[in-house]
Amino acid sequence: MAKKKIFRAQGLVSSNTAHDVFESDAFLAIEASKIVGLGSWKDRPRHKSFQIEDCRYGVITPGLYNLHTHLAMTLFRGLAEDLDLFSWLRDYIFPAEKKWVDPNFVRVGTELGACELIRSGCVGVADMYYFVEAQAGALDRSGLRGVIGQHFFDEGGTDSKSQDDALRKAKALKRKLKKHPRLQAALIAHAPYTCSQRTLEFVAQSAKELDMGIMMHTSETKKELADIKRQTGSSPVQLAKRSGLLEAKFALLAHCVWLEDQDYNYLRQSNVTAVFNPQCNAKLGSGIPPIQKMLASNARFCVGTDGPASNNNLDMFAEINFLSKIHHVSQGDLKSLPGQIVFDSVTRRSAEAIGLGAQCGSLEEGKEADFIVIDTRSPHMQPLHRIYSHLIYSVQGPDVESVYVGGKALMKRRRILSLNEPRILREAAAWGQKIRSALPSQQQPDQLASRA
Amino acid sequence: MAKKKIFRAQGLVSSNTAHDVFESDAFLAIEASKIVGLGSWKDRPRHKSFQIEDCRYGVITPGLYNLHTHLAMTLFRGLAEDLDLFSWLRDYIFPAEKKWVDPNFVRVGTELGACELIRSGCVGVADMYYFVEAQAGALDRSGLRGVIGQHFFDEGGTDSKSQDDALRKAKALKRKLKKHPRLQAALIAHAPYTCSQRTLEFVAQSAKELDMGIMMHTSETKKELADIKRQTGSSPVQLAKRSGLLEAKFALLAHCVWLEDQDYNYLRQSNVTAVFNPQCNAKLGSGIPPIQKMLASNARFCVGTDGPASNNNLDMFAEINFLSKIHHVSQGDLKSLPGQIVFDSVTRRSAEAIGLGAQCGSLEEGKEADFIVIDTRSPHMQPLHRIYSHLIYSVQGPDVESVYVGGKALMKRRRILSLNEPRILREAAAWGQKIRSALPSQQQPDQLASRA
Repeated sequence: MAKKKIFRAQGLVSSNTAHDVFESDAFLAIEASKIVGLGSWKDRPRHKSFQIEDCRYGVITPGLYNLHTHLAMTLFRGLAEDLDLFSWLRDYIFPAEKKWVDPNFVRVGTELGACELIRSGCVGVADMYYFVEAQAGALDRSGLRGVIGQHFFDEGGTDSKSQDDALRKAKALKRKLKKHPRLQAALIAHAPYTCSQRTLEFVAQSAKELDMGIMMHTSETKKELADIKRQTGSSPVQLAKRSGLLEAKFALLAHCVWLEDQDYNYLRQSNVTAVFNPQCNAKLGSGIPPIQKMLASNARFCVGTDGPASNNNLDMFAEINFLSKIHHVSQGDLKSLPGQIVFDSVTRRSAEAIGLGAQCGSLEEGKEADFIVIDTRSPHMQPLHRIYSHLIYSVQGPDVESVYVGGKALMKRRRILSLNEPRILREAAAWGQKIRSALPSQQQPDQLASRA
Repeated sequence: MAKKKIFRAQGLVSSNTAHDVFESDAFLAIEASKIVGLGSWKDRPRHKSFQIEDCRYGVITPGLYNLHTHLAMTLFRGLAEDLDLFSWLRDYIFPAEKKWVDPNFVRVGTELGACELIRSGCVGVADMYYFVEAQAGALDRSGLRGVIGQHFFDEGGTDSKSQDDALRKAKALKRKLKKHPRLQAALIAHAPYTCSQRTLEFVAQSAKELDMGIMMHTSETKKELADIKRQTGSSPVQLAKRSGLLEAKFALLAHCVWLEDQDYNYLRQSNVTAVFNPQCNAKLGSGIPPIQKMLASNARFCVGTDGPASNNNLDMFAEINFLSKIHHVSQGDLKSLPGQIVFDSVTRRSAEAIGLGAQCGSLEEGKEADFIVIDTRSPHMQPLHRIYSHLIYSVQGPDVESVYVGGKALMKRRRILSLNEPRILREAAAWGQKIRSALPSQQQPDQLASRA
């Protein structure tokens, strides 16, 4: 007999298209992996086959999606600061990746990142990194939903000898994940500045043949836009369009900070999503995403943290908090981005962006039981006047106390159940030590000041 | 015999002028309320009269200061969103204050705010609110250091009938706190748009006679700057100068978003501090503080959250994270605001700003034992490559696990010891219910959607 449970909570946010919110004494009923009911506690199903879980200390919402990150880079967190994107990549990150990245690095870093995502209320992720088998293994164990992909560059990359080799690996990944209940394979065209139009076309053609989604870094800096325009006559978005990338099953275009007016026409397609990374873009001085124009153009945006070496935190609650504030201060329009829209973008709209709209992303009968419980028993969560105000401006990752995906608890009462967190923390600390001790002397962290 | 303790930690950040950092296996020795030693564990005092406290799961830093807030407004947290400063004040906050603010409101709200400050690693606060006796009582019990003050407006205010009445109350507060080990009284000129030059002069003259510091909201919005210029021919800072306010024992000028070039000359005085509130300024669309010019002018800036009805969180770690990012993206200069400067501004420089520089704000022998322990045992805190990177970009308030002021634990292992937090949370929730239920119908939070 399928397991039936009723979660009783202080309140519930559905993220459905009507933005139904149950402000007090709410329930969510699930059976096996699915939602079978929700509403006011007084209207709950009363059959005794339902086991009651008392979460009256918290609010239930859909779990969040982080649609652009590089989880394994947790192991480089804070390695280099106060640098623009290109110096940061060239002088620190690329050399460190060259030296260290291997399947074990990817396993530990991805597991660490998965723990962090779970702790801050994520249920899904679009992750770009190398050694996809190790990455897939870690995400499979974590219990998260995810999109991962094989990288393509003009030549070989960190984990492939050539484009043909990358394509073989992509096909293998697709086969491996074909029946996976939570993970799907995509193709990654790294960026317009690392992929020629020929390469972009190769990825687009492969995505079409294999019926896969694509991911790409797009228009992150002003320099990138200028360079690509000069080299190709097109903006990165126009280049993606011309190369056929926007015909893929879905296209996640990370960053989209510097767009031209014409770009919005291409972004409006139903299978295309701009994934904003406002904290990383701010920290690296890249710019502020054009949220207002995206809203006006009726194109879809979602949100990601980018890798934890540049952000330096995977907390999506922090990300939407920042997104709202940077929008207010840059646009001077305080009404165009209400909390509902922002919260939709990291729940229902994110699920839609990766082809899961029918099954995931909101709390509705028949959908997957992907949800989180946010603890309200701390001083910064009281009183609770307006739930969306709290979700955008007050909740912090550590307020999340339980995370469920398909009815299965990945974290319960702040204990991660799907992964061995203590072991992962030890392995991550050891990796940290190894990486630091091999840094060239001018990049060493501040040394201990000796005091008599 | 005085109590002697040695805290052993994974690392220690001193915030002294040399920015000494002990990267691994550090100690902090205290005797009664004072620091008597710090450094590498191998150099610790070995006398057995020292009791050892094992904090090797964490990093010790000075506690933080929040130099501009309105703690009691915790009770209005999230009451109104997506509004500019003036609509927010006029349509929601002023009416709510008029209806609800009394000594009990102030006690509960201030206690709630104090819990929140302690939980996120603050040891000191400059708090502006009404019914100063209730406010002082709450802060006294909390164990925090603080500056509080009596408000002056052109006429009477929420808690005074007239300026003379306010002055009487200010004198009473000063007498009451004269020998207080942690709290000091100041005078508050609310803002240039609520105080005429005559009132500002009255406050300045009183501050001089009574040897007290002053606090004022200053140049928060572009409109304020334009209005004050039109009305008086001076910017708010120039007006403060002309009125004699900058001759006070110390002057905390909150916000300082819209400054004129000449203003920096006045801000450079050693007793004057601009207190930036970057998150609140962003959220209300007021603007971005001129951090670059402040750095260039060699004037002192510190940081505050502003009240939790506009931010909506008192977490100073979130505030410095935002400050750094908004600086990077607005100035395009990634090197001018290193983590050391930011962290100094919320520790040593903040203590200096309120006249406590000799005793507080950094971990040095002979100074007060005001410090916090930050837990590093969570995935977003690993690995730990560079401590300042973590302090600015990764630490979140809930990572703070212990807080000491003058050697006394206000929170230990995440349990608040100085205040009865469960009782305060209950009282705050009850206040919340009362406030919501009296809102006019058009301001009611979204109602429960009824589902069949």
